[in-house]
Amino acid sequence: MIKIRLFQESDWPIVWNIIEPVFRAGETYAFPRDISEEETYKIWISAPKATYVAEDQDHVIIGTYYLKPNQPGQGDHICNCGYIVAEHARGQGIASQMCDHSQREAVAQGFRAMQYNLVVSTNSGAVRLWKSLGFEVVGTIPQAFRHPQHGYVDAFVMYKQL
Amino acid sequence: MIKIRLFQESDWPIVWNIIEPVFRAGETYAFPRDISEEETYKIWISAPKATYVAEDQDHVIIGTYYLKPNQPGQGDHICNCGYIVAEHARGQGIASQMCDHSQREAVAQGFRAMQYNLVVSTNSGAVRLWKSLGFEVVGTIPQAFRHPQHGYVDAFVMYKQL
Repeated sequence: MIKIRLFQESDWPIVWNIIEPVFRAGETYAFPRDISEEETYKIWISAPKATYVAEDQDHVIIGTYYLKPNQPGQGDHICNCGYIVAEHARGQGIASQMCDHSQREAVAQGFRAMQYNLVVSTNSGAVRLWKSLGFEVVGTIPQAFRHPQHGYVDAFVMYKQL
Repeated sequence: MIKIRLFQESDWPIVWNIIEPVFRAGETYAFPRDISEEETYKIWISAPKATYVAEDQDHVIIGTYYLKPNQPGQGDHICNCGYIVAEHARGQGIASQMCDHSQREAVAQGFRAMQYNLVVSTNSGAVRLWKSLGFEVVGTIPQAFRHPQHGYVDAFVMYKQL
């Protein structure tokens, strides 16, 4: 069983350890692969409305996600989330549980829908997971992502009404 | 004939006069309708890679657009633009000329495509114009925009390879 709770400042070193290899690999998120720790903190912690961590039964942090409005003003009723699971904890349903949690949090915070803007088409595990959780592909952006191995690949806009 | 050139600091009061009524109306851009002049400056001038103005034959500014990467990192080869024409100068093809200009600038700056993330479906003039200029709807976000008169309306993701 995992526990999902709000991020606390003291969590940052572990959260950064989880995020850093994913951003460095550059295969799933459109951030510069040489992004700094400070810039990552801004993106993952400061800018979002809230950030959460998932802990395993030993209170070890094994995942994190953020929640924020996807657009300002007249578009702020749709939220956006980003999820990362620690490499050693993958394949155990952590992302799925974080996604479920984020949907409940989003509803509690008054959001009407959730949107992912750039789901990399080669990240087939993520695409399959979001579909299984009720998201649908509402758009396909041709060659939107410069993949380090596969070159220019399509990205999906995925959406779920909450 | 209009002339399109880079924004200069001394243009701001006129550019703000052109933008303000559009943001206050809240029918086409997803910014808070009570947005401040300072926040608008950040969005339209500071954050983009470049901002331009369109002048009429008397050197009066009648339109403005910005150009920026639509995503960071592995998504920064697709650009995004926003265009606004002064109310008194609409219906004269100014937006079309700014869009043509922005595509040339984007190519010169190395972008491979242009993407609009939130074209409000009720803004039929804009949808028709972008289509006529070679953009296609690559996504439809259900009820993505809270229109002051029409309530929740769909928004389109529009895209053109350059």
